[in-house]
Amino acid sequence: MWSYQAPLRDMQFVLEHWLDAPRAWRRSPAFEGLDLPLALQVLEEAGRFSQGVLAPLNGSGDRQGCRWTADRVSTPDGFADAYRAYVDGGWPALACAEALGGQGLPQLLDAALQEMLYASNHAWAMYTGIVHGAYLCLKTHGAPWLQERYLPDIVSGQALPTMCLTEPQAGSDVGLLRCRAAPQNDGSYHLHGNKLFISGGEHDLTGNILHLVLARLPGAPSGSRGISLFLVPKQLDTGQVNGVRCDGIEHKMGIKGSATCSLVFEGAQGWLIGEANRGLAAMFVMMNSARLHVGLQGLGHAEAAWQNAREYAAERRQMRAPLRPEGIAAQAADPISYHPAMRRVLLELRTTSEGLRAIGYWVAHLLDQAEHDPDPQARQPAEQLAQLLTPIIKAFFTEQGFRQASNALQVFGGYGYVTEFAIEQTLRDSRIAMIYEGSNEIQANDLLLRKVLGDEGRAFGLLLAQLRDEAGQGGEWVECAGFAVALGKLCGSLAAVVDDVRELSQEDSEYPYRVAGDFLQLCGVTLLALAWARAARVSRALPEDDPLRASKLQSAGFFFNYLPSRVAQHLAAIEGGRAALAFV
Amino acid sequence: MWSYQAPLRDMQFVLEHWLDAPRAWRRSPAFEGLDLPLALQVLEEAGRFSQGVLAPLNGSGDRQGCRWTADRVSTPDGFADAYRAYVDGGWPALACAEALGGQGLPQLLDAALQEMLYASNHAWAMYTGIVHGAYLCLKTHGAPWLQERYLPDIVSGQALPTMCLTEPQAGSDVGLLRCRAAPQNDGSYHLHGNKLFISGGEHDLTGNILHLVLARLPGAPSGSRGISLFLVPKQLDTGQVNGVRCDGIEHKMGIKGSATCSLVFEGAQGWLIGEANRGLAAMFVMMNSARLHVGLQGLGHAEAAWQNAREYAAERRQMRAPLRPEGIAAQAADPISYHPAMRRVLLELRTTSEGLRAIGYWVAHLLDQAEHDPDPQARQPAEQLAQLLTPIIKAFFTEQGFRQASNALQVFGGYGYVTEFAIEQTLRDSRIAMIYEGSNEIQANDLLLRKVLGDEGRAFGLLLAQLRDEAGQGGEWVECAGFAVALGKLCGSLAAVVDDVRELSQEDSEYPYRVAGDFLQLCGVTLLALAWARAARVSRALPEDDPLRASKLQSAGFFFNYLPSRVAQHLAAIEGGRAALAFV
Repeated sequence: MWSYQAPLRDMQFVLEHWLDAPRAWRRSPAFEGLDLPLALQVLEEAGRFSQGVLAPLNGSGDRQGCRWTADRVSTPDGFADAYRAYVDGGWPALACAEALGGQGLPQLLDAALQEMLYASNHAWAMYTGIVHGAYLCLKTHGAPWLQERYLPDIVSGQALPTMCLTEPQAGSDVGLLRCRAAPQNDGSYHLHGNKLFISGGEHDLTGNILHLVLARLPGAPSGSRGISLFLVPKQLDTGQVNGVRCDGIEHKMGIKGSATCSLVFEGAQGWLIGEANRGLAAMFVMMNSARLHVGLQGLGHAEAAWQNAREYAAERRQMRAPLRPEGIAAQAADPISYHPAMRRVLLELRTTSEGLRAIGYWVAHLLDQAEHDPDPQARQPAEQLAQLLTPIIKAFFTEQGFRQASNALQVFGGYGYVTEFAIEQTLRDSRIAMIYEGSNEIQANDLLLRKVLGDEGRAFGLLLAQLRDEAGQGGEWVECAGFAVALGKLCGSLAAVVDDVRELSQEDSEYPYRVAGDFLQLCGVTLLALAWARAARVSRALPEDDPLRASKLQSAGFFFNYLPSRVAQHLAAIEGGRAALAFV
Repeated sequence: MWSYQAPLRDMQFVLEHWLDAPRAWRRSPAFEGLDLPLALQVLEEAGRFSQGVLAPLNGSGDRQGCRWTADRVSTPDGFADAYRAYVDGGWPALACAEALGGQGLPQLLDAALQEMLYASNHAWAMYTGIVHGAYLCLKTHGAPWLQERYLPDIVSGQALPTMCLTEPQAGSDVGLLRCRAAPQNDGSYHLHGNKLFISGGEHDLTGNILHLVLARLPGAPSGSRGISLFLVPKQLDTGQVNGVRCDGIEHKMGIKGSATCSLVFEGAQGWLIGEANRGLAAMFVMMNSARLHVGLQGLGHAEAAWQNAREYAAERRQMRAPLRPEGIAAQAADPISYHPAMRRVLLELRTTSEGLRAIGYWVAHLLDQAEHDPDPQARQPAEQLAQLLTPIIKAFFTEQGFRQASNALQVFGGYGYVTEFAIEQTLRDSRIAMIYEGSNEIQANDLLLRKVLGDEGRAFGLLLAQLRDEAGQGGEWVECAGFAVALGKLCGSLAAVVDDVRELSQEDSEYPYRVAGDFLQLCGVTLLALAWARAARVSRALPEDDPLRASKLQSAGFFFNYLPSRVAQHLAAIEGGRAALAFV
C-alpha cells in the first residue's frame, strides 16, 4: 500500500552539508535566530503534518474527487479539515515577512515544506501551492491599500489566491486572451470573460478566494503587451458576492481532489495590480514562484515513487537473482530488489529524487540570497542564477517525476496497475506537471532562447562558474576525483553546445527552437551531475560509520557510471537538430 | 475529441511493398486464392468494424468499467453486442485452419486486424486477444477428443479462452504457483487454488469460458518443472456449472472495460493439455502468440496517439512559429503543428507508429512462413527469427506505445489531461502492456540471456543477415544510400555488443542481466532502422506524385537523423553496465 515518510535525514544533509545553509543564515540579519536545529524542528513538524494529515487523504481524495453544483464546489472529505490544520499550524506564513504576520523563514524551508505537501497529496497542495507566488506578486506590484487589505488574509491563510490566465483559445499563447476590464468611476474595474483550467477557482476551504486575473483594458494593444493584472475577490467587502461564478470543473486523469474550474466573470469588480498593460510582468513574479513549486511537485512524486518502490521491492519475492548481497543465503525466491534490472531502477529512483532535492533546494536558497544576502553585490547574481534555473527546475523535474513514477509502477508489476496500491495515482497525478505553468516545451524555449542566447551568456556564465568551481574541488578526495573530472568535462561540453548554437543560429534562426528540448534535458542532467559531485564530496563531513555517507558515494558512483549515456543521447540529438525539420 | 481511422493506406504499403507479401502468398498452397485485393478487402472490413463498432465504445467503456456481483461480471454497455457482431463477421476464425472452420488466412492479416482492435478499443480486445494463442496451444498439445470438442467453439467464437497463470505469490515467477490438480478415475482432474489478474476470467460475452490453467499434479517437482496445463471449462457438458468462481475484479488505472478477475477453483473439473509436468512448454505456444499481440497493443496505441495528436496539432492555433510552410501567410497565431518542438514530436509519432507496423507485420509474416513456406528448409529459420524477435516486439513496442501516448498527450496541452479528450485514456490503457505477459524486464532477459547468448548466436545471426541484406540494397537509390550506410554501421555495433557481452559474461555472469534492458532497446531501435531503410527504398515502387512516397522518404530522413542519439544512449549504457551494481 502507498505510504509516505518525510525524508528528513536527506533534507538535513542538503541543508547542512550540500548547501551549508546555516552559514548563510548566520551571515544574514534577515534570518537572525535561525539555526539548523530550529530549521530541522520546522521540517519535522511539516513532515508530521504531511505524513499524518495529508498522506491519508491522498487516495480517498483521488477516489472521491471534487463535486460541482451551480452554487458550490465541494472538495473531498477531509480536505477542508486538513486546510484548517494547515492554517492553525501557521504554514501559509512560513516564508512571509514578519512585518506582514509571517514567520520570516527562508524560502529554502518553504521549498522543503512544499516538497512534502506535494509528495503526500499533490491534489490538496494545489490549493496552497500558489500562495507564496500571489503573496510576492501583490507585495511587489500591489498598491499600498491593496496590500494592506489583502496581504494579511493571504499570509494568515484566511483567503486563498488563484491565478487566472488561461482561456479556451489562449493557453500557451497568453497574448490571445480576450477577458476585458472596464474602468469604473471609483477606480475599480468590472471584468468580463471566461477563464479555463483555474486551479482552486472555487472550493470550500476558505470563505474568500482572491483571483489574480489577466484581462485587457479598453483600447489596449493586441497581444501580450496589452494585458493587465487585476485582483478580483470572490467576496466583496460590501458583503456582496462578486460577479464571478464557476460554471463547471474538469474531469481529469489525476489530481482529482483539486478543483480545476471554468470561471465566468460577469462584471466582477476588481482592482489593478501594477501598471496598465504591464500585467504579464507583474504576473511573472507569481509565475516564477509557481514554476519552482511545480518543479517541487516533480521532486515530491519522484521521492514518493522511490519510497514505495523500495519498500515493495524489499518485500516481494520472485525468482532467484544471479547474485545476492554477501552473507545472504539463497531461498526459493529472492526479494526482487536483488534482481539487476530492479537494482538499476531503484538506484535511478534514489539518485534522481535525492539529486533533484539538492538542486531544487539550491534554487530556493538562491532566492533567499537574492533577497537577503548581506552583501548587496551578491544579490543580483543569485537572482540571475535562480531565474536561469527556473525553467530547468520546472521542466526537468516534472519529467523526472513522471518517469520515476512510471519506473516505480513497473517495480510493482501487475499490482502497480491496480488502484489499491496507489502508485498508479502517483503516475496520473505527476503527468499534469509537465503541462501546466508553461508547458515543458515553453520552458525549453524560455531557457535557451531567452535566458541563454538572449542574455549574452551572463546568467549562463554564472552557472558555468558554479559547475567549474565544484569540478575544481572534487580532486581533494580520491573517491570523488573521477566525479569531478566528469563534471568538468560535461561543463565543457555544455559551454561548447551554447557556442555552437549561438553561431549556427545566425544563419538558421530556427535551430535553437529545434534543439531547445534536448538542451534543457542536458542542463538538467548537468545539474544532477553537480548534485552528485558535491554530495559525494561533502559526504566526507558525515561520520565514517554513517550509512548515509556510504549511500551517497554509492549513488554518485552509479550516477556517474550512467552519465555518459544520458549526455551522449542529448548531444547527438542537438547535433541531429541541425538538419531541417519537415512540416507534417 | 478522440477518434480513430484504420490506417489502411499504410497497411497496404507494408503488405505490398515492405513485405512483398503477395509474392509469398502466390508461392504457398496454403494461401491459394489470396491476393492483395482480397487482403485489402478483409482489412477494410476489419477497419469498418474497428472504427464503427469498437471505437465508439472506447470512452464509454472506460467510464462505465466492469461490474462485479457474486454471480456475474457485466461488461460495459455495448461490449456484448460488439462481440456478437465480431463473431457474426467471422473474425475469430480469420487465421484458423479451414479444416477447423476457420478462414485459413495468414497471421499477417490477423496482426493487422489485432492492431485495429487494440487501437480502437484495447479493453474490449482483451477478451478476444488470446483466442488465437489458445487455438494454437490446444491444436498443438491437446488430445484429439479435446481438440474435437473445444476447437470449434474457439474458432466460431462461441466460447472465449483465458490464460490462468498468475497467483498472488507467483507473478513473474510462475514456478512459485500452488494451484493443485487431483487426478480422477475418469481421466479428468479436479483443480483447487486461486488465480489472480485473469483477463476475461468471467464476463457476459459468451455462455462458456475455457480456462487454460497451470497447476501442479500430486508429487510434481517443485519449481517450473512441476507444472501442468489444464483446460477447465466454465460450463460442463453435463449441464453443470463447473467449480470456478470469480470472487472479485480489479479496479485498475486503465483498460477498465476489461474484467481482470480473481478466480477461485474449488474442485473444478478439467483435462490435461499435453504432458504432465510439461505445462509451461504447452503454455509457451500460447504465450508467444500473446506476446506478439501485446506488442501489437503498443503499435495500436502509438497509431491512435499519432492520429489524434496530428489532428489536434493541425487545428489548435497558439503563437507564431519561427517558420511556416512555403506559401502560408502569417496569422495572429499558427497551428501548433508548425512549432519546431511539435513538429519533432509529430514526426516521432509518425515514424514510430509506421515503423513498428512494418516490424510487427514482418514477425507475423515470419510465423506464416514458418508454418506454410513451400520450401521446408525456409520454415525453421523463419520460426527462429520470429522467436528471437518476439520479446523485442513485446517490450519495445509496448514501451513505445506508452511513450507515444504521453507525447500525444503533451501535444494536447491542458486538454490532454482532461478525460473529455480521451488521449489520457490512451496513456492509461497503454501502460499495462509493459507489465503483463511477462514484464518488459523478463522479456529483456529472455532476449539476451536465452535467445541470443543461450543460442550460440544462431537466431541472432539470422537477424544480422537480414539487416546486412537490407543495408546492402540501399545503395541502389541515391536518396537512400545514407540510410543503408547507417543501418550497416548499426548492424556492426550490435554484433560487436553481443561479442563483448558474451566475452565479459564469462568472468562476470551478472553482466548480461545488467544490460539486458538496454540491449533490447538497442535491438528495437535497430529494427526501426531496418523498417525505415527498407521503407525508403521500396517507396520507389510508388508513383512519383504519390504523397506517401514523399512522406516515407521524409520520415526516413527524420528517423536516421536522430538515430545516432538513440544508439549512443544505449551503447553508453551497455558500457556503463560493466561496473558492478550496488544492492539498495
